[in-house]
Amino acid sequence: MTQIKSNVNVEQQAIEAKKAAKKLLTLSEAEKNEALHHLADVLEREYETILAANEKDLKNGRDQGFTEAFMDRLSLSKERVHDFANGLREVSELNDPTGNVLSDWTLDNGLQVQKVTVPLGVIGMIYEARPNVTVDATGLALKSGNAIILKGGSSAINSNQAIVEVMHKALEETKLPKEAVQFIASTDREATNQLFTMKEHVDVLIPRGGGKLIQAVVENATVPVLETGVGNCHIYVDKSADVEKAISIMINAKTDRPAVCNAAETLIVHKDWLEQHAAVLNEAFKQENIQVHADEHARSVIENALPAGHEDWANEYLSTDIAVKTVEDIADAIAHIETYGTKHSEAIVTEDDEAAETFMKLVDAAALYHNASTRFTDGGALGFGAEIGISTQKLHARGPMGLPALTTIKFLMKGNGQIR
Amino acid sequence: MTQIKSNVNVEQQAIEAKKAAKKLLTLSEAEKNEALHHLADVLEREYETILAANEKDLKNGRDQGFTEAFMDRLSLSKERVHDFANGLREVSELNDPTGNVLSDWTLDNGLQVQKVTVPLGVIGMIYEARPNVTVDATGLALKSGNAIILKGGSSAINSNQAIVEVMHKALEETKLPKEAVQFIASTDREATNQLFTMKEHVDVLIPRGGGKLIQAVVENATVPVLETGVGNCHIYVDKSADVEKAISIMINAKTDRPAVCNAAETLIVHKDWLEQHAAVLNEAFKQENIQVHADEHARSVIENALPAGHEDWANEYLSTDIAVKTVEDIADAIAHIETYGTKHSEAIVTEDDEAAETFMKLVDAAALYHNASTRFTDGGALGFGAEIGISTQKLHARGPMGLPALTTIKFLMKGNGQIR
Repeated sequence: MTQIKSNVNVEQQAIEAKKAAKKLLTLSEAEKNEALHHLADVLEREYETILAANEKDLKNGRDQGFTEAFMDRLSLSKERVHDFANGLREVSELNDPTGNVLSDWTLDNGLQVQKVTVPLGVIGMIYEARPNVTVDATGLALKSGNAIILKGGSSAINSNQAIVEVMHKALEETKLPKEAVQFIASTDREATNQLFTMKEHVDVLIPRGGGKLIQAVVENATVPVLETGVGNCHIYVDKSADVEKAISIMINAKTDRPAVCNAAETLIVHKDWLEQHAAVLNEAFKQENIQVHADEHARSVIENALPAGHEDWANEYLSTDIAVKTVEDIADAIAHIETYGTKHSEAIVTEDDEAAETFMKLVDAAALYHNASTRFTDGGALGFGAEIGISTQKLHARGPMGLPALTTIKFLMKGNGQIR
Repeated sequence: MTQIKSNVNVEQQAIEAKKAAKKLLTLSEAEKNEALHHLADVLEREYETILAANEKDLKNGRDQGFTEAFMDRLSLSKERVHDFANGLREVSELNDPTGNVLSDWTLDNGLQVQKVTVPLGVIGMIYEARPNVTVDATGLALKSGNAIILKGGSSAINSNQAIVEVMHKALEETKLPKEAVQFIASTDREATNQLFTMKEHVDVLIPRGGGKLIQAVVENATVPVLETGVGNCHIYVDKSADVEKAISIMINAKTDRPAVCNAAETLIVHKDWLEQHAAVLNEAFKQENIQVHADEHARSVIENALPAGHEDWANEYLSTDIAVKTVEDIADAIAHIETYGTKHSEAIVTEDDEAAETFMKLVDAAALYHNASTRFTDGGALGFGAEIGISTQKLHARGPMGLPALTTIKFLMKGNGQIR
């Protein structure tokens, strides 16, 4: 693939984004919503331009022998472009997360204090080869009054550039400055690295993608980061777990969408339960074509299991493989999660409420489940509307991040000469 | 000063802190409050131990010729130790910030969702030579269910170590594990640097001190940081500003406590107002012994003003010096703040509500004031109780940070077998 190094001046783009962010502060919710609808209409109208650019990326992808799953995520169609447009229309329906007075009070001296939500300013979005993020993230940013700098994966660069060009054309026909959407049209890693340290112009970086991408951002950025996504999730089947619930939750969490971050990767199972229910578990693995990687004890009762080691406990399979770990008790299970979990989503299956409470209290993760599948850690499933990602960090936002995660607050004080 | 390099194993300390943080999750609010009261009592009882250690730091300080202001912050007395103890008692009275259900709802499939506040876990506190932070930060951490790792300035190391030893002794007589309070007893910079990257064991770093300290943390840390404190604050006196309000707000913001972060450093003044009210402004500067550093235009009307340049606009004086900048209009004023401000506290003095609204909307800072002094950006003044610092960043917490800034959330889901 040719490296595209066109005359990209990332700092200049960031300065323009910052300026556009100021302009966004002066616009009304109606103006932002109208712009989102217009973006949607123009994307639908210009879908052929987008598909032509996408064809170039697909050709590059085929030439480089990318996997089918990768090509599937990269591939656009008229229908997918319509889905993007409808996503923008849905975002326009969500409540404006800015301008909310979270609290207000008056000091004894008469100074009036308001704590009000405001946009973050400029968001740097760094993501892999999913062109839908280009549209989704732009919609969420604009709705929340933020400018956005997009840096997508290089294998989708033609698709992304075409999408942004169409969006720019559309924005010119709205009240929103088109400079509010900046696209880094370069596959040069230096361009991304510049973004990492532009504290003056960029308010937050949101990396979306695999562990390596996120790690690179966290290690190199001085701009604050909202970490998203890696989910090494566990289902712990406790001694008293109901068999039907345990099996159906495990199968759902593992197989419903194995490649997503809220899918389960390891089944932790109480040794008594395992011994008692090995047959039904074996049956389930077989029926669902799940490849098991198990510790020594579990291998003595689970059929066709490969040996599991550190790599199996520590990494996401993102496939229908599963690791199986036997434990003596709940403390063992919690310790295993503490060692290998990514603080995303963890589930316990048990009929013992006290065990459930211990699990909920002691396991450190964004989402904890008692007798339900980890697959519900998702902005859509929880009713947040669209999400910008799933935060696995503890500051600012944790778990699925909807529009409020793209805001900060200001204290606004009105006085008549108060001094201290 | 001798470098203390005793056998400090920061990683081991962080592991112990993490373990203690787990234990804290199982304690009740009453148990935490009892411990805070006991800490207070024992600190008061053992004040002589603390003062003896403090004497060593003071001697080192004198030997090294530290400034009077520095020595004043370092110096302890029986009264100051009593103040520390009372601070802990006050923290015990504050509402427990953990265990609050921020929202709860039930999905159509019956899955119950709760969004609940929980402690962050382990806080790394990095601060300069103010022994009071050792006690204040410990109190806030324990009240909010967090373990804390303290790394104070090397010039206060004997005082801090003595305070921590007394607190450890006290904690042994409570339900709280003494390992929840870790003290890095080293003046070795390597020890601090180790803290910066221990993402596995440390949940947040809070640097408190000058710009250089904060910069070092932000640049080197991979652990998330809550930035605090540098305040290059401005008072903008608009064309229509009331003279009395303008003068009294300017004097208060500049002179009440010049060394704190919410003090004003630059007076931005509309040229028409300046021309009309130069006499009264000169009188005020003279009466308050304020040394003015001004731009060329202001120097033509302000007496005894030194020329101001980039350094004056960009830095905090932290003294009764003030920079004066003349502007043509409010847009100029906002642009100056955008270039040189630190997003802390900014004020406009005006009788023009539209100008005030523009200022509140467009200036990007934690706290914005209309006709009041910037000195109110303070947890105590705003009624938050004790504060852990004043955040000048936008993520997680902005402005004065009370106990809620030391919490994160968990989504707790209760089901009966829900799958997706």
